[in-house]
Amino acid sequence: MKKIINEPGRFVEEFMEGILLAYGDRVQCLDPEKRVLVRKQTAPKGKVGIVTAGGSGHLPVFLGYVGEGLLDGCTVGNVFASPSANKMADTIKACDFGSGVLCLFGNYGGDRMNLELACETVEFEGIKTRKVLVKDDVASSPKESADKRRGVAGLVYAYKIAGAAAAAMKSLDAVADLTQKALDNTRSMGVALSACIVPEVGKATFHVGENQIEVGMGIHGEPGIEVHEMMSADQVAQTLLDKIVADMPLAKGDEVSVMINGLGATPLEELLIVYRKVALLLQDKGISIYMPHIGEFATSMEMAGLSLTVLKLDAELKELLRAPASTPFYTNHNK
Amino acid sequence: MKKIINEPGRFVEEFMEGILLAYGDRVQCLDPEKRVLVRKQTAPKGKVGIVTAGGSGHLPVFLGYVGEGLLDGCTVGNVFASPSANKMADTIKACDFGSGVLCLFGNYGGDRMNLELACETVEFEGIKTRKVLVKDDVASSPKESADKRRGVAGLVYAYKIAGAAAAAMKSLDAVADLTQKALDNTRSMGVALSACIVPEVGKATFHVGENQIEVGMGIHGEPGIEVHEMMSADQVAQTLLDKIVADMPLAKGDEVSVMINGLGATPLEELLIVYRKVALLLQDKGISIYMPHIGEFATSMEMAGLSLTVLKLDAELKELLRAPASTPFYTNHNK
Repeated sequence: MKKIINEPGRFVEEFMEGILLAYGDRVQCLDPEKRVLVRKQTAPKGKVGIVTAGGSGHLPVFLGYVGEGLLDGCTVGNVFASPSANKMADTIKACDFGSGVLCLFGNYGGDRMNLELACETVEFEGIKTRKVLVKDDVASSPKESADKRRGVAGLVYAYKIAGAAAAAMKSLDAVADLTQKALDNTRSMGVALSACIVPEVGKATFHVGENQIEVGMGIHGEPGIEVHEMMSADQVAQTLLDKIVADMPLAKGDEVSVMINGLGATPLEELLIVYRKVALLLQDKGISIYMPHIGEFATSMEMAGLSLTVLKLDAELKELLRAPASTPFYTNHNK
Repeated sequence: MKKIINEPGRFVEEFMEGILLAYGDRVQCLDPEKRVLVRKQTAPKGKVGIVTAGGSGHLPVFLGYVGEGLLDGCTVGNVFASPSANKMADTIKACDFGSGVLCLFGNYGGDRMNLELACETVEFEGIKTRKVLVKDDVASSPKESADKRRGVAGLVYAYKIAGAAAAAMKSLDAVADLTQKALDNTRSMGVALSACIVPEVGKATFHVGENQIEVGMGIHGEPGIEVHEMMSADQVAQTLLDKIVADMPLAKGDEVSVMINGLGATPLEELLIVYRKVALLLQDKGISIYMPHIGEFATSMEMAGLSLTVLKLDAELKELLRAPASTPFYTNHNK
């Protein structure tokens, strides 16, 4: 194992301490275990709170999006493990500003179960919640059982839309419905070239062959659709886009935002080469791109690979996407 | 070789096309070969132009910093290879707005030689230039021969200071002198855990052993100070900071900016764990940190490892560091 860490059991605490040392003027932890991160600035009274939760190992997902115009709070678990229901409830309580809280989560069993419990707990205390689950990974289940799909980089678009809607002082139901509309128009799929190492395990828990690429692999190493001989960048772009387009109705004249998300070890140069082909293929279909996102937005530590996310826009979603946002790891100020 | 690319000989052209497809509203290429990238927006008449140049494979260095408050233009070469003097001259000419051009470069033989030629060429045409070389890597040569040191991630701070000084409409000499002052107060050093692959070569041209870490390795794989058994994050932080502090006078009460720069494959979590220790060590010395930079700023494609850069600030440098900047890959708007 070659990781630049200290004691594996302190991995989460130590990177959280790093975040607090670097960005303590903007975010704070509410617990000594450092699993509940919230904004330091007080939100306007009556703003809908936006919270998320999930395992560590995916920075900037999840806690990198706590900030202005995005999330109010985040509960973080151990690497690839759900945080507890208690910590989730603490986060929700801290992010209720009088108009309820939207809980925005990836569709994973542990996270869902703990979220249900957390919402029950806070509802006893009179806090209204709405839950929206992110299920954007088309490779994780066929269209007929789309409800079983996992949440991957589409989370980031969901945070952006929800955060902007809440900042515009919309109601809890309006924020939840807008976020759901964005997600109904969001699809993702990825490829992986190598595994990643959970610090406490110390070695890769899965394996991608020397000259192979795993198409549709999940961000925790969940098996993909197929193991393929290594592909060119253009083939990767075509494969991912074909699968996404087959799953969502896109027509000439449509406008989309496209995210090329590096999983960790893949150079920015390669992400740009894949973006190039995706943009050309969409151009051929008469589909235009607005505000592309190219970089590392939802990672799996040192995994090599990337994912493509397409968000189909309408005027309302476009306005929310372009609204200002500022967190330590995501900035949008419309330049 | 596992890289998500197409024809290796088209690596640079294709990622440049990706940049133009994604950010063509903000940057443009002046040549069909796509080696000269400049801002699309016209600079104010009389602003000093800031240009740089260097080999590809280090995104966001170099061309990712072309934009508001940073660079006006950049000449890019093949992977790890200097661009030609002709292309550099074309860039300088395009970035003269009447008050001369600062050429800000890493201290590498090929880049320097071509830059000398380029400056001679444009001076014939009446364009005034100043050259400032970045030599921040303390591992690349001892203090007695600091002039031979290579330029690494300190380039980014130099771009920021120069860009802000130019945006404030200072004269060419003033911009060059401020940039030199920043560089006199900048030191960097890195560690590498793995090699990287030049696309046209197709395999790693150097090697880091299975349980080893190379201390002081250059961003093109230049040998470091020592090959060490794998270290903990705290040991990495201590080793790099000790070497940097021994090279630059830092005293209690000083204020610095710190950059923890990922070389490509190292997860953000690990960068934060190293930042944590650097911040604690500086705290112990009574030195405070302003505007930390944690992320990938100057990479070597898929190399695993990181570098630490320390920039000692005074009131003037602090003001320039915090000035607004916006490029596709670097944003600062003082939130």
